[in-house]
Amino acid sequence: MSTERTVSFPTAELLEAVGELPENLKPVIWDLETDPNSSLDDIDIAIFPYMADPKFLANVRKAKNVKIVQTQTTGYDGMIDMIGDRADICTAAGVHAAATAEIALGLTIASLRGFPTSVRDQQTGRWNPQQWPGLADRTVGVVGVGGIGGEIRKRLEPFEVNLLRFGSKARHDEHGQVFDTDQLPELAAQIEVLILIVPLNDSTHHLVDARLLAQLPDGATIVNVARGPVVDTDALVTEVVSGRLNVASDVFDPEPLPSDHPLWQCPNALITPHNGGNTSAFFPRMVKLLKRQLLAWSKDQEGENLVHRA
Amino acid sequence: MSTERTVSFPTAELLEAVGELPENLKPVIWDLETDPNSSLDDIDIAIFPYMADPKFLANVRKAKNVKIVQTQTTGYDGMIDMIGDRADICTAAGVHAAATAEIALGLTIASLRGFPTSVRDQQTGRWNPQQWPGLADRTVGVVGVGGIGGEIRKRLEPFEVNLLRFGSKARHDEHGQVFDTDQLPELAAQIEVLILIVPLNDSTHHLVDARLLAQLPDGATIVNVARGPVVDTDALVTEVVSGRLNVASDVFDPEPLPSDHPLWQCPNALITPHNGGNTSAFFPRMVKLLKRQLLAWSKDQEGENLVHRA
Repeated sequence: MSTERTVSFPTAELLEAVGELPENLKPVIWDLETDPNSSLDDIDIAIFPYMADPKFLANVRKAKNVKIVQTQTTGYDGMIDMIGDRADICTAAGVHAAATAEIALGLTIASLRGFPTSVRDQQTGRWNPQQWPGLADRTVGVVGVGGIGGEIRKRLEPFEVNLLRFGSKARHDEHGQVFDTDQLPELAAQIEVLILIVPLNDSTHHLVDARLLAQLPDGATIVNVARGPVVDTDALVTEVVSGRLNVASDVFDPEPLPSDHPLWQCPNALITPHNGGNTSAFFPRMVKLLKRQLLAWSKDQEGENLVHRA
Repeated sequence: MSTERTVSFPTAELLEAVGELPENLKPVIWDLETDPNSSLDDIDIAIFPYMADPKFLANVRKAKNVKIVQTQTTGYDGMIDMIGDRADICTAAGVHAAATAEIALGLTIASLRGFPTSVRDQQTGRWNPQQWPGLADRTVGVVGVGGIGGEIRKRLEPFEVNLLRFGSKARHDEHGQVFDTDQLPELAAQIEVLILIVPLNDSTHHLVDARLLAQLPDGATIVNVARGPVVDTDALVTEVVSGRLNVASDVFDPEPLPSDHPLWQCPNALITPHNGGNTSAFFPRMVKLLKRQLLAWSKDQEGENLVHRA
């Protein structure tokens, strides 16, 4: 018989959707903002809320016996510092892939086809046909060949683009060549659309800096669905405000993007507020992952997507 | 030796891009708005301008000996009535497929992911994260299985959707089942995204009428990249103004959409001004088609995409 353990769920809705728990797991509801009904000391496994303020996530330390943290995000930047000394960290990698890959394609097409201009024209009833560059025939760099990067590749392939993929080391896989991210500067002059989907860590922080931006051709578009700090935001702002480059981004540094930030007022910036993984596709995929995790944990096995061991 | 014939090009740019003509074909420049330098009576083959006012296209009748008309559009609605008594009509089918399929996907994702709201929020610097439905897991009906319909299918398939295709008759092809367009009403209740890419003719005029719209589920989105009159616009306006349905459309009835038209002010309408085929992908593909057509015509063969014989 395996250990009896208590698992905190951030919402009753999520617990209900997961259904009956394996018999040695006991649920409590804890959103990390308010105290749970039962003792925080009982909690062995904490499922994080989906899009919570990081200051609330830090409350996980109040649960003194927590041994596993399950995120509802793919990214876990900051979480090792927060709780990694005491708890294993499992992410929701895979859960957000479809929604995030889809917003990457949407941001790309919307920006290249001038949808922001169309929406603004719509407000004044202005019929303003014009030629926009379009995605077909573009050279597109996708930086990141993980789960979501793969989903972006799959969705991009039918669009008649010239696709350059970049990963942490140069190699060939079943989809062709992968360049080393270090080769970005030498290939940048060809890249008309640069899609970012790398995890944020020391080696990807400010991966897209003033120097790399300067090497992209005039009119190139940066599509960031990774994390804001993968791009040097000040350098990006300079290139976007000047009109030389365009940006279509779901993530920013900082978030929320302050209301007086210069990007808001750039007509060549398309800003979505970190909606990447947040669609109706999320909940059923999250529930499926949790069912698998709970079963593993009930058998004292480690769950999927274990990115850190305490 | 084949017949000597005169071909009118709408712009010098297009003529130059096509390069040297077969020796029995002589070019003139005629934009159909102003008179050409040489006699209109000399013109045997007229290449239409891309996006001209239909009132100028009707000037083709001034060329009394024109025997072939080459459009730069895929659609040829109204052209048989205009000149079909005397001239064969060849279209630019294929040329616009990539750009039109791409805008169909773009309009779909942008609408489902709330990009119009994001663009409006951007104007006031408002960070407004929220859950949008997303494309993954949606049941998508694509009405039209021709060239562009096929390109839309190809681009949609990786998006984890449930795809229902509709054509002029029920059948199976290498991509699975095709329903008869007559079956739209019986399947409408499942269709969350309805993408229209049929030619406009008597059988598709007002194909999407009040009755069909009423059968779509609440929150469904109509994506029209076909022609405006495929939809009963008054019926659509009623459903969009009420907020029950959404529309993301590149084509309207009439065009240009009048500045006081009620659709402009609907937050759940995404309006692009018939930009469908008009990207940088268009010109190189049009030039390639014309080279093939000119070669065929120089040999007294009929060209590609012959949709009407005089």
